[in-house]
Amino acid sequence: MNIYDISQKAGVSTATVSRVLNQSTKVTEKTRNKVLAAIEECGYTPNAFARGLGLNTMKTVGIMCADSSDPYFARAIYFLGEALRKSGYDVILSCTGFDQDMRERQMSLLLNKRVDSVILIGSNYTSDTDENNRYITDAAKSIPVMMINGNINASNVYCIASDDRTAVFDVTSQLISSGRNRPLYIYNSRSYGGIQKLRGFRDALKNNRIKADESNELFIGFRRSGGEIFPVKEIKKSIEDHFAKYGSFDCIIAAEDIIAVGALKFASSNGITVPDKLAVAGYNNFELCECCEPELTSVDNHLELLCDKCVSLLMEVFSGESIPKQTVFSCNIIERATTDLKERPRL
Amino acid sequence: MNIYDISQKAGVSTATVSRVLNQSTKVTEKTRNKVLAAIEECGYTPNAFARGLGLNTMKTVGIMCADSSDPYFARAIYFLGEALRKSGYDVILSCTGFDQDMRERQMSLLLNKRVDSVILIGSNYTSDTDENNRYITDAAKSIPVMMINGNINASNVYCIASDDRTAVFDVTSQLISSGRNRPLYIYNSRSYGGIQKLRGFRDALKNNRIKADESNELFIGFRRSGGEIFPVKEIKKSIEDHFAKYGSFDCIIAAEDIIAVGALKFASSNGITVPDKLAVAGYNNFELCECCEPELTSVDNHLELLCDKCVSLLMEVFSGESIPKQTVFSCNIIERATTDLKERPRL
Repeated sequence: MNIYDISQKAGVSTATVSRVLNQSTKVTEKTRNKVLAAIEECGYTPNAFARGLGLNTMKTVGIMCADSSDPYFARAIYFLGEALRKSGYDVILSCTGFDQDMRERQMSLLLNKRVDSVILIGSNYTSDTDENNRYITDAAKSIPVMMINGNINASNVYCIASDDRTAVFDVTSQLISSGRNRPLYIYNSRSYGGIQKLRGFRDALKNNRIKADESNELFIGFRRSGGEIFPVKEIKKSIEDHFAKYGSFDCIIAAEDIIAVGALKFASSNGITVPDKLAVAGYNNFELCECCEPELTSVDNHLELLCDKCVSLLMEVFSGESIPKQTVFSCNIIERATTDLKERPRL
Repeated sequence: MNIYDISQKAGVSTATVSRVLNQSTKVTEKTRNKVLAAIEECGYTPNAFARGLGLNTMKTVGIMCADSSDPYFARAIYFLGEALRKSGYDVILSCTGFDQDMRERQMSLLLNKRVDSVILIGSNYTSDTDENNRYITDAAKSIPVMMINGNINASNVYCIASDDRTAVFDVTSQLISSGRNRPLYIYNSRSYGGIQKLRGFRDALKNNRIKADESNELFIGFRRSGGEIFPVKEIKKSIEDHFAKYGSFDCIIAAEDIIAVGALKFASSNGITVPDKLAVAGYNNFELCECCEPELTSVDNHLELLCDKCVSLLMEVFSGESIPKQTVFSCNIIERATTDLKERPRL
């Protein structure tokens, strides 16, 4: 869209559009409103349009996440924001929830603001279908798109991720090596990252010749959203139901720390000692791990490192350098009081 | 600043500035760069300048907070963002830390982006001195400034707060009424809100003829910042030191939930039963309260309500309506397993 299209739409000359953009006193209020309406009808804010006319970069990056009140996303927003600010960029924040419509709408709003890039936080932005990913690959035609923990193979889309599959494989393998043989994996997301973690769990079972079936896996439907409090009590109840149906287990690997906290609540209210009778490991290694009782073994996925790397790669893209399409970091297991990983056959 | 000032600074005619803003092909690259440099020298982005020329609102609100990874601020950002989006406004997020310089710089960046308003989250933006508050009162000369839990008395500044002083008074009074007489207040912030809470504690002691001195108050230096993990273990140690110095206490009121979690860690590692020997109450009532052991009694300060009200008041300001300078909401005590508030003489 250019100044000519706007003039056509408004039924005025291009000179008149210029005058409106320059607040010339020679334009009547009626004409001015017609031009502004035409700009907005084209889906642009007048401001974004002015920039589209060739003014400099806005030095602004859009950040999209499902829910900024989720501790993982909140920390990512913080780390990205700090790194961007140090590079001279401001942040426009956009929370999309998990609906496809809202994601597409928010992406389009960010593009209309003429951001220099969009960073998508969370593997939930990676869809199974090309159609659902199209708003991302389309956006990448005009600006670089960075994905934290995403995985979309398209031109001008760059993914920075932690190796969650290997991390869950490792923590499960270590629990088995330390003498556990009835593991239970609990998860609440079937996003791309959620599936990777589940695969890591299944790989470890297969590798240790433990049968993997529905008795080893518990999917719980609760998900953080809308700033609501995560229903820890409900997790406890789900585990009790699973226990009643499939019998006991001697270790729990949880896809998120707060799910592991639910497992600890299950243990304490059923008189099961941790880690003697039940070992528990979480994922994310945020401050919750040191708040629960006993303190929780967890996987550190180096979120700050991911965010810093994401921004430094973006700055390289801005300077015209080639960067890898995918950058993957290993995770570490941080052992605390809920496990007893005596043997460590894997390094 | 107007188009004339820019033309003077760049040493070109106003018509040339117009041409640059309209990307006319009649301008040489050299001239174009001179004009853009002049605009930026004046502290404006070219974009913000274009808007300053009389284009419509950007429909964007700036949100400032110390640290978006703090759970309280993260939730506030989420609730404000949702409410603003429903009203058709986007969010530019700005994390300032606790330094005066950075606060002033970020405010100025937001103003240069021509946001329609700035919302400041957290009482740490309320300073003792007019001089330190000047960047806020100055900003309010051009746009309405909203403060969540702030308290600055100036034209076009609107404060929406929870009544933290009364809430701490109430929870302390209820603990005393339930038979406790050696209370300890633990806090880590001397911000405006931090002082209000401390006053509520002292009021309750005075009201119950309990001597208030340094033995009843423990200030700990740890503060959330930089996305770091809060040092729960250090809190535990500070309480042990205080205990060794001043003797025992039978209830702890904490200014934040995670401090109360540190108190629970202190109790469990010293064989002190909760709530029998030690009652513990926190503040904020977020999901941590249901993750610790035993579950934590806390004060619900209705953050979502505050945020929704803040945005609806802002929309009223935008429509030219008069709104109260100060809007204060009561808090509620949510009792869980760490207290035993049998008697409830206050309603």
